[in-house]
Amino acid sequence: MIDIQKQRDYRNIPIDKVGIKNLRYPIKVMDKSNGVQSTIATIGMFVDLPHQCKGTHMSRFVELLNLFREQVSLDSIDNILEDMKTTLGAQSSHIEITFPYFVEKEAPVTGCKGLMDYICSIHGSSTPERDRDMVLKVAVPITSVCPCSKEISKYGAHNQRGEVLVSTRFKRLIWIEDMINLVEGCASCDVYSVLKREDEKAVTERGYENPKFVEDVVRDVSQILNDDENITWFSVSAENFESIHNHSAYAYIENGDRTNF
Amino acid sequence: MIDIQKQRDYRNIPIDKVGIKNLRYPIKVMDKSNGVQSTIATIGMFVDLPHQCKGTHMSRFVELLNLFREQVSLDSIDNILEDMKTTLGAQSSHIEITFPYFVEKEAPVTGCKGLMDYICSIHGSSTPERDRDMVLKVAVPITSVCPCSKEISKYGAHNQRGEVLVSTRFKRLIWIEDMINLVEGCASCDVYSVLKREDEKAVTERGYENPKFVEDVVRDVSQILNDDENITWFSVSAENFESIHNHSAYAYIENGDRTNF
Amino acid sequence: MIDIQKQRDYRNIPIDKVGIKNLRYPIKVMDKSNGVQSTIATIGMFVDLPHQCKGTHMSRFVELLNLFREQVSLDSIDNILEDMKTTLGAQSSHIEITFPYFVEKEAPVTGCKGLMDYICSIHGSSTPERDRDMVLKVAVPITSVCPCSKEISKYGAHNQRGEVLVSTRFKRLIWIEDMINLVEGCASCDVYSVLKREDEKAVTERGYENPKFVEDVVRDVSQILNDDENITWFSVSAENFESIHNHSAYAYIENGDRTNF
Amino acid sequence: MIDIQKQRDYRNIPIDKVGIKNLRYPIKVMDKSNGVQSTIATIGMFVDLPHQCKGTHMSRFVELLNLFREQVSLDSIDNILEDMKTTLGAQSSHIEITFPYFVEKEAPVTGCKGLMDYICSIHGSSTPERDRDMVLKVAVPITSVCPCSKEISKYGAHNQRGEVLVSTRFKRLIWIEDMINLVEGCASCDVYSVLKREDEKAVTERGYENPKFVEDVVRDVSQILNDDENITWFSVSAENFESIHNHSAYAYIENGDRTNF
Repeated sequence: MIDIQKQRDYRNIPIDKVGIKNLRYPIKVMDKSNGVQSTIATIGMFVDLPHQCKGTHMSRFVELLNLFREQVSLDSIDNILEDMKTTLGAQSSHIEITFPYFVEKEAPVTGCKGLMDYICSIHGSSTPERDRDMVLKVAVPITSVCPCSKEISKYGAHNQRGEVLVSTRFKRLIWIEDMINLVEGCASCDVYSVLKREDEKAVTERGYENPKFVEDVVRDVSQILNDDENITWFSVSAENFESIHNHSAYAYIENGDRTNF
Repeated sequence: MIDIQKQRDYRNIPIDKVGIKNLRYPIKVMDKSNGVQSTIATIGMFVDLPHQCKGTHMSRFVELLNLFREQVSLDSIDNILEDMKTTLGAQSSHIEITFPYFVEKEAPVTGCKGLMDYICSIHGSSTPERDRDMVLKVAVPITSVCPCSKEISKYGAHNQRGEVLVSTRFKRLIWIEDMINLVEGCASCDVYSVLKREDEKAVTERGYENPKFVEDVVRDVSQILNDDENITWFSVSAENFESIHNHSAYAYIENGDRTNF
Repeated sequence: MIDIQKQRDYRNIPIDKVGIKNLRYPIKVMDKSNGVQSTIATIGMFVDLPHQCKGTHMSRFVELLNLFREQVSLDSIDNILEDMKTTLGAQSSHIEITFPYFVEKEAPVTGCKGLMDYICSIHGSSTPERDRDMVLKVAVPITSVCPCSKEISKYGAHNQRGEVLVSTRFKRLIWIEDMINLVEGCASCDVYSVLKREDEKAVTERGYENPKFVEDVVRDVSQILNDDENITWFSVSAENFESIHNHSAYAYIENGDRTNF
Repeated sequence: MIDIQKQRDYRNIPIDKVGIKNLRYPIKVMDKSNGVQSTIATIGMFVDLPHQCKGTHMSRFVELLNLFREQVSLDSIDNILEDMKTTLGAQSSHIEITFPYFVEKEAPVTGCKGLMDYICSIHGSSTPERDRDMVLKVAVPITSVCPCSKEISKYGAHNQRGEVLVSTRFKRLIWIEDMINLVEGCASCDVYSVLKREDEKAVTERGYENPKFVEDVVRDVSQILNDDENITWFSVSAENFESIHNHSAYAYIENGDRTNF
């Protein structure tokens, strides 16, 4: 049976990335408290294609993923990236994995336990220019209380759910939980899945005592990441789903060495 | 050229709805202040198909829409529904039109003008059992301040953006603007696109003075709609994008005569 | 500490549904081949609220879910529904659970294994009028080949990915896998996650030999469900993400006894 | 009334981008055939914030947009970018505008007219390093027919809707219509809103005669853009919503001078 993909291409145009996208797949991720947790990821896998090749072999991406089934975790990404290059005869390989990650969290006063969900992504690349590039992205929902509204109003202050998205490059592997804790400590207050009345009083007061603009949140996160010698690059954005508007307030800071990626 | 759709079907199964879905289309909608406004809709159009027909003629739905181009408005829906039945040889016809609708709104103190957007839908049906059934749906973003959080906390109160969705059946045509005003009057405070500092003080204080659960919001909207003799049926839901949780609080009331649809 | 929610309400308006929505949560679902599978659900939980009560107690919904943690499965829904009524002092309770479900599937010629994902929902209700009402919804991606295009064209036929959504009420519990198989058997061809060249030839030819309109697909599914005495009610829709249009073709059939829900 | 945003910040951290996001707004866009067309955009507007300023003034972004109301078009973006810097005392300004754009298109045989929709974005920036940077993005739905499936199968070939996303930087302003035509010429066949039977035959046959992988589509688009001296940079991706899989095939090429942005 003829292999069309293997035929020679004469357009003389190499392709940066070719592969599969939006594949839903169950994975296991390393969990700081429990060793490992099962979750469902959406996955993209890509390689480069030299100018002389007509097409890549799409089925091999999924076959490769199946080999790693149950072991698709942060620390196996290097192996997947290498196997993608070998299996597909490529110089570069890229994988993007996005998944909800759950952390058990106690309410601040009653200690009631609940599960909080955080959407995380891992983007891994292996290219001739840069042996391995890995970025961890964590989206953390927060409470933000407006400092201006608090200051100018007789009572109350508008507040809302916000989302902080932190992306990091690092020397040693970092825990998702540590990124979450870092961000939650920079919010007006963090967000819980179960709050009893005593807890609700506590988080309301903590938020009111601790008003923050989106500008404050990204600066406070940046300050900590700037001082962390393990972090070689980061970006942090904060988006407030404003309670007084039908649009968002947004702030973004990026820092670190971009020359080598 | 053979017309496969026109062939006889022997499975003896009539089809309730067949047609097109997720068609993006520019429309004009009646506007209480300005006569008419241009917007972009997502449209579904369906008819029934008798058991003996193999298929409907999908292209005719879009052709019909093109005939009404620039006149796809609330009051032309009856004509579209009738033309769908004639053109497609059907007993029943249905159209669903969803679009953002804009209202110019002044900030409460400074009077600064801005445009607020509301997602609206019109669902029209014409069937043998019920000559014409029309439902107007309006989604209104609101501010909601938690009564419990206010009461139990030393200061502050958690608040958030919420969304109220009102669906109505009516005797005489109603204005989208009137539905919006009704809902905004039942919120802790309404939402604006431009607020200067004086306005922000006003909306913060108004919200704090006027705390409401999702339960309160749907009850207050229901109370008004119950008393409106023009409304023959309604449903109202309120969803709060809780600032202290990563999930929503939700309440729903439906009322009116469902026997005839 | 005062319990605002418990206060008396004087508006005299009962609320149909009040609770939480869009809560992401890890669950385990019964799996015909492997006993159980872990997945991630999006959950809504609601009860009614009598006219004299000001508010429900939102935190109890999540606490209840935590009690069932790791046992949130199809057959435990009755227990959750009963516990919701008891815990919240309600007459009615409702739960809606939506999750991706994975099935290992072999390619038709090479037998290569891959995981297919299907989005499923379970809607359970317990009300005074109807002790228990349960609906299972399964969304099945399919290949559909256009019979008209095949017939009128010299060669080829436009085809595309489609999605069939089947909802059923039943006497005895049914397997998600059985609903999937039923639908896949009614498509031009079913969809796979891994296909080698031999498989691609097989599915291309099978689809071409087996052209179906959306009308055909919903009729074929209906015919089987009509004949199944275990099914008391169903609806089935087919949506084709047309390869020759930027909108969808759509068909819908509903059948069964609606008098008691 | 105190201006909290204007206070001095001591963290010594400048912010790259701060502003508003996800604002829905009616705009007018230049239209090659009709002069101008009305559409609805989703808009983000951002400026930098120097390290010594605590916050930006969010309401000014919307006020500025209101000034340009009805004239928010491709050629007014320079003015908006300049006014953002002046109004907000910033060194850099950024605007991102995303909207559906409609083109009237005739069916290939019958000449039946219909409206095709394309999602477009304009990203404009003005920074100290680069006076003006503008990127136009156009998403074009296409039909793609698989060359491998055609070659190895007795008859038929799997095909599907795909989406090509082209982003360009340019010397002289380019028309959205020209980008659309370029992409549609590189597909197996283009997509229409109205096709009669004669047209359906024509597009089915044209697609079958013209099979293309995602790799072929991005290469063919690249070849044309490489040869266009008006284009200083581009990226092009093609994503096929595979009719035989529940995931996408994807290819991406980027080319041009990135040193100055």
